[in-house]
Amino acid sequence: MIKKIGEYTMQFESTPSITGYGAVAGKKESEGPLGSCFDKIFYDAHAGQDSWEKAESTLQKEALSIALGKANRKPEDISYIFAGDLLNQCISSSYGLRDFNIPYLGQYGACSTMAQSLIMAAVMVESGGAQCSACVTSSHFCSAERQYRFPLEYGGQRTPTAQWTVTGAGSCIIENAKGNYPKVAYATVGKIVDMGVKDANNMGAAMAPAAAQTISNFLSDTNTSPSDYDMIFTGDLGKVGSDLLYQLLDEKKYNIRDNHRDCGLLIFDCEKQDVHAGGSGCGCAASVFCSAILNKMKNGELKNILLIATGALMSPTSTQQGESIPSVAHLVNIVI
Amino acid sequence: MIKKIGEYTMQFESTPSITGYGAVAGKKESEGPLGSCFDKIFYDAHAGQDSWEKAESTLQKEALSIALGKANRKPEDISYIFAGDLLNQCISSSYGLRDFNIPYLGQYGACSTMAQSLIMAAVMVESGGAQCSACVTSSHFCSAERQYRFPLEYGGQRTPTAQWTVTGAGSCIIENAKGNYPKVAYATVGKIVDMGVKDANNMGAAMAPAAAQTISNFLSDTNTSPSDYDMIFTGDLGKVGSDLLYQLLDEKKYNIRDNHRDCGLLIFDCEKQDVHAGGSGCGCAASVFCSAILNKMKNGELKNILLIATGALMSPTSTQQGESIPSVAHLVNIVI
Repeated sequence: MIKKIGEYTMQFESTPSITGYGAVAGKKESEGPLGSCFDKIFYDAHAGQDSWEKAESTLQKEALSIALGKANRKPEDISYIFAGDLLNQCISSSYGLRDFNIPYLGQYGACSTMAQSLIMAAVMVESGGAQCSACVTSSHFCSAERQYRFPLEYGGQRTPTAQWTVTGAGSCIIENAKGNYPKVAYATVGKIVDMGVKDANNMGAAMAPAAAQTISNFLSDTNTSPSDYDMIFTGDLGKVGSDLLYQLLDEKKYNIRDNHRDCGLLIFDCEKQDVHAGGSGCGCAASVFCSAILNKMKNGELKNILLIATGALMSPTSTQQGESIPSVAHLVNIVI
Repeated sequence: MIKKIGEYTMQFESTPSITGYGAVAGKKESEGPLGSCFDKIFYDAHAGQDSWEKAESTLQKEALSIALGKANRKPEDISYIFAGDLLNQCISSSYGLRDFNIPYLGQYGACSTMAQSLIMAAVMVESGGAQCSACVTSSHFCSAERQYRFPLEYGGQRTPTAQWTVTGAGSCIIENAKGNYPKVAYATVGKIVDMGVKDANNMGAAMAPAAAQTISNFLSDTNTSPSDYDMIFTGDLGKVGSDLLYQLLDEKKYNIRDNHRDCGLLIFDCEKQDVHAGGSGCGCAASVFCSAILNKMKNGELKNILLIATGALMSPTSTQQGESIPSVAHLVNIVI
């Protein structure tokens, strides 16, 4: 059973285990600081498919297959899969997963989807509804650019606050298991926060207030402080969003500067790789968490971490209609 | 705790109650056979807003507010809200719900979203993660047409198999409560089914195989037959999809003709209202379930029903790329 702690936090009494995980990424990501951590690199942006959307589906398939393999599980062992992505109607997920024949629950939390799917997969195991569940999310630079911004061929200039959508996917298998596995201990689901930011090229600024709210809710609910965790990872706030997060948490007397890292800043060398404010996309938190972060937990370098994935819940239509950007951030505490 | 029954079905041991529900609809829906059942009618397609998308958000707000009122609950009593819609990046939900300040978990199951959100809200209560959770989904004819098909001003002709997107929304409040409430007893989550249908103007045909699979999985898991239920409601298969569903279930030796109704055929008088094969959209199953169906359960006319909401998981992009339509169907068994 789940125990509610404070106002917003769930404690997983049986601490569901991540028995398998997999991450795949694209060529640019392979040239970044985490290049050697991914299970598989797709050097071809099309991944052998005839469209970028199908390529993104292929990333999901591969990430899930790798995670299944490491968990020594087959698709038929998985009771439910929670998946989502950034494309309209989440087609990377529906087309990527249709051949696996696993009961499917589509999730939409924009770039927060990895944390959301992890939480839902853990809830399903903890509730008794699943013996074993899975989650997977993805993003692809080319499919995201053409859908959210400009046709790639147009070669539009990017603002300094813009982030670079990661081509990548990550997947986890969650089940009750004994052994030296990373486990989901606590989770805090975020509320929608909208501070009026309207610049769709500055999503770090739009999402930072949501991250600050969820982190402070979690720390307050659990009566812990940032230094109680080996590392606090945000999904894809980038440079601008990370700086804002520090300032917003200062106001609540929390200082996370010493042990905070942002997946969007870990996956790329921002200056050398010309990605401006950092990486972004569902695949950013997913591919970094399901490679570098979980690897460090497995080998004992990290024992108790927070992952806070943030999502900007706007669409090109809402931006064109002059709306501001509602955001959300979900937190999971993983221990080993 | 949830108990797994057979291969695919969850039994909710504490049978979470639907303590409040609300449904709103548009002018055309008010002129249909269920016109008097809805809690509120929006006669203006803009619902007082300056875009159809914002109008759809308004439908969600109203449906949720009505459900909260009937359950005698305030937004701060709700631990989690599960919501989704058909618009790109689910903006009806994110913009509609941002002011409620409720931890938010976006769901995407296309027109199956009402059943999916009900299931997730019930799982969250059953797991102990929430004392009280909510779900809401919507669709709007005008926002859906312009996004999925043609600009309304174009006046494109519709094929005989086409369905008419319902302007409406429905919301439920779920909690453990004693009393004469409709309760979630069982649920079956569907797999993605794709039989190769490529005609985006014949979604009933695309979705019927998913409905047939989920219904037969449920009946087989629970060792029950269609006649054990007072009524079996599908979400929005329309005429074409309903006929196909009968044929597909015949092959599995299940005959549901006597006690099957489709929400898409209940909400409109297809001939008089010129809606061709029937209604569709997330708001179809949602507004019919959260009005006529739950009303009949509350007054004792129906005691044990199945709701199977079906979703077509394609997008205009996947259709343009020549892809077939993957579909999914989720089932909930509601008793009183």
